[in-house]
Amino acid sequence: MKARPHEFAAIFRPKSHAVIGASADETKFGGLFLRALLTFGYPGRLYPVNPGETNIFGLKTFARVADIPDPVEFATITTPAPTVPAIVEECLAGGIKAVQILSSGFREAGPEGQRLEEQIAATAARGIRVIGPNCFGVYSPAGGLTILPGAALPRDSGTVALISQSGGYAIRGAERACGWGIRFSQVVSYGNGCDINECDLLEYFCHDPNTKIMLSYIEGPRQGRRFFELLRQACRTKPVILWKGGLTGGGARAVASHTGSLAADETVWDALFRQTGAVMVKSLDEMIDTALAFLHLPHYSGRRLAVIGGGGAIGVAAADACEMGGLSVPQFSLELQSRLEAMLPPAGASTRNPVDMGSPFPLPSAFRSVLETVLSEGEVDLVVVSELSLSVAGPAMARRMGDSGLHSLLAGAVAESAQVPVELRRKWDRPLVMVLPVESVSADDIEAEEGRRKVADYYLSQGIPVFLSLERAVRALANVSGYYERRETLASGE
Amino acid sequence: MKARPHEFAAIFRPKSHAVIGASADETKFGGLFLRALLTFGYPGRLYPVNPGETNIFGLKTFARVADIPDPVEFATITTPAPTVPAIVEECLAGGIKAVQILSSGFREAGPEGQRLEEQIAATAARGIRVIGPNCFGVYSPAGGLTILPGAALPRDSGTVALISQSGGYAIRGAERACGWGIRFSQVVSYGNGCDINECDLLEYFCHDPNTKIMLSYIEGPRQGRRFFELLRQACRTKPVILWKGGLTGGGARAVASHTGSLAADETVWDALFRQTGAVMVKSLDEMIDTALAFLHLPHYSGRRLAVIGGGGAIGVAAADACEMGGLSVPQFSLELQSRLEAMLPPAGASTRNPVDMGSPFPLPSAFRSVLETVLSEGEVDLVVVSELSLSVAGPAMARRMGDSGLHSLLAGAVAESAQVPVELRRKWDRPLVMVLPVESVSADDIEAEEGRRKVADYYLSQGIPVFLSLERAVRALANVSGYYERRETLASGE
Repeated sequence: MKARPHEFAAIFRPKSHAVIGASADETKFGGLFLRALLTFGYPGRLYPVNPGETNIFGLKTFARVADIPDPVEFATITTPAPTVPAIVEECLAGGIKAVQILSSGFREAGPEGQRLEEQIAATAARGIRVIGPNCFGVYSPAGGLTILPGAALPRDSGTVALISQSGGYAIRGAERACGWGIRFSQVVSYGNGCDINECDLLEYFCHDPNTKIMLSYIEGPRQGRRFFELLRQACRTKPVILWKGGLTGGGARAVASHTGSLAADETVWDALFRQTGAVMVKSLDEMIDTALAFLHLPHYSGRRLAVIGGGGAIGVAAADACEMGGLSVPQFSLELQSRLEAMLPPAGASTRNPVDMGSPFPLPSAFRSVLETVLSEGEVDLVVVSELSLSVAGPAMARRMGDSGLHSLLAGAVAESAQVPVELRRKWDRPLVMVLPVESVSADDIEAEEGRRKVADYYLSQGIPVFLSLERAVRALANVSGYYERRETLASGE
Repeated sequence: MKARPHEFAAIFRPKSHAVIGASADETKFGGLFLRALLTFGYPGRLYPVNPGETNIFGLKTFARVADIPDPVEFATITTPAPTVPAIVEECLAGGIKAVQILSSGFREAGPEGQRLEEQIAATAARGIRVIGPNCFGVYSPAGGLTILPGAALPRDSGTVALISQSGGYAIRGAERACGWGIRFSQVVSYGNGCDINECDLLEYFCHDPNTKIMLSYIEGPRQGRRFFELLRQACRTKPVILWKGGLTGGGARAVASHTGSLAADETVWDALFRQTGAVMVKSLDEMIDTALAFLHLPHYSGRRLAVIGGGGAIGVAAADACEMGGLSVPQFSLELQSRLEAMLPPAGASTRNPVDMGSPFPLPSAFRSVLETVLSEGEVDLVVVSELSLSVAGPAMARRMGDSGLHSLLAGAVAESAQVPVELRRKWDRPLVMVLPVESVSADDIEAEEGRRKVADYYLSQGIPVFLSLERAVRALANVSGYYERRETLASGE
């Protein structure tokens, strides 16, 4: 039975919430979840349910749902699989509108689990909505709800929705994306999807005015035709970034034991992406990178890229990475080249595109002139500033450079250069992205990494996407360019 | 003229060293380089040369090479391109055996630079060896020499050599690789290679007993046939990991303005990799990942991989990533599956391969049993432990978890689990690698990142390769498997 938009209010913003299987033992799902909800700061009425307890974490605890004296809108169920069908019945009887079932041991576990899941689905059809089973639940900052084990996720909402058949990727995706400054309308781990499935969620977020970008990890949709149609419809207005798990033989075998889905053939999925305009990604990092690009870049069309870097091989590698990734790095006009030449040192620089500033520490004034000229001239659709040194860390770095005089001179210039992209992004509103790679992964260099992260966080807060490598930037940008191209093609074909 | 092995002694371990163009101004190459050498701790006699100075950084400074009263073995030249040919002549006249020319403005800059470079090559042919011009020089820890601007590179030697046509990738590659615990015999940035080129270096390192693995960034070799033959010869005994810049049209254009090389067609290079057995990589990160795998893994053959992770979708994605990357994730025998089942929780785990431990925080005892069983059973060639939580950071994490009791419980178990791979690697000596991804890139989470890095550094120090993502691990392992396969095929065809 299709879920209707108003039914999602009870799931995303419940005024009251029973946690069935609540426990004071945080090594159990019921304890971990209740603690997470309290830490996160759920603002509604909370009712732990456990027949063996009277008080958990200072909250009055009830033996059964029927004992709760007030009306309850939503429940989370964490008890063992065999107990769940009866509990869902009790919830329905008690007037609860929706539940999420975190327990596993259903369809993914074999015939007995399948039978339990069918019982739940039958109860759901009689008037209660179900998320799960075998899921980590819902993260909905506007409703004060958090997913398992997301006590530390941000309390502020954003414009990205993530729907994930996998609980692991729901929490991991939410945490990683939040580290990149992405904020969510909702994240939904829907597991086996015995009632509310990917189609219901896709339909909801397609019409949700708060959601601008949809991300999805999916193993096997239950309603293939409906999924296809919804995807096509959604992609007309919002990008849907889809990571399909189980495309290979080994992946498909793993799917069977994870959510018990049937994974279709890769060719079927290729056709689906082509015909709907959904953006195909192949890893969590690629999903997040692509979301960042959609989130921050103004609408553009085209695949012509300028790369501005420092140190010649970086230009060569940049051109290779871009062209291998499906973008082009066109040579600048001679007129533009000669204007850039006047801004750069005579030896060691290159102005054809990629632009080699001649040093990873360019003078702020030269960097500003070059970047502004390239951004404003319109010979390319996108500009990438790649692997310039835009952070210089503190005293340890000074010691390593062997001279604090040079270090402070450099630090001043670097800090000034670091401002340039922000100023010019504001002034021109053109697609501009930064590549800020991690230069050393050792714990000994954690200070330099902190400096790099501060600069990256600053750019992200100012609406400039940041990537960890040029290859990752190119993949994300090619995904965005491809989406806008396909959207136009599909629209003109209708 | 081919360089002979003994000639490299003057370059890699010079007893005395003139820095021509030395300066007290560290914003100039001559100042930056001299300071780097002093900070690094060059142990031989140092002679700054600059006609306008008498003392730089406390060192007696000479107007010309001819004024230095002692014999000098090696010189670094940092003066402007037009002055360099005469200086190389003076060095030859003064009995200096080899020079490195850091200055740019030669072949890469047009006909006038080309003429200057030809003059230098002609002088070299009369009895002095030249590294460069247009390079960052040599890092040779055994000789106390460092590359520009590598004052902070480690002083200890290792078994990896890096030869790079690009200065930027020489220093960047050295710094990044050292962060991964890789140590070098030598790193040579040879720039335009007007005398000593990639062939000479390849030949030297092929016979160097201290070098076990060769890395190379190359844009266009000068002696194609010799390069091919040397590569084929080297690959019989040592892996050569080659990153070819300028494979695409845009990349080839960038090469021309970088080192003035001609970049051959991609098909030519494909044939070269196939016929020589060299390992082709397409980025600096892939080069380093692949080097790590060669460095730490015992010799193995095959492409069958086991993945052990926690959280089911991680298994699905793992299987996809492995099969897309050219490795296989075979289903375990039923006998092995049932042995593993006895070690794992009944719900939420999977034992087919990938193995899903059921949680990213597995019990140490279960983790030990599962890993040891998979390692010792011989149903796979390689084992990857992917994305288990093996570090838990300090007080900030405890606050975020909302309960320090759970945090310390978890931290204890995690610390015990973290030991397991090290114990079992020692006991079994089978190919085992770890994937430890960065979970949040924000500066706010720097403490968690420091914890993660400490664990990663520990594994690396114990000879266990660590990768930042499963995709990167798979690419590196497929490179290693491919090298051993080709080496066998090529050997049997001879």
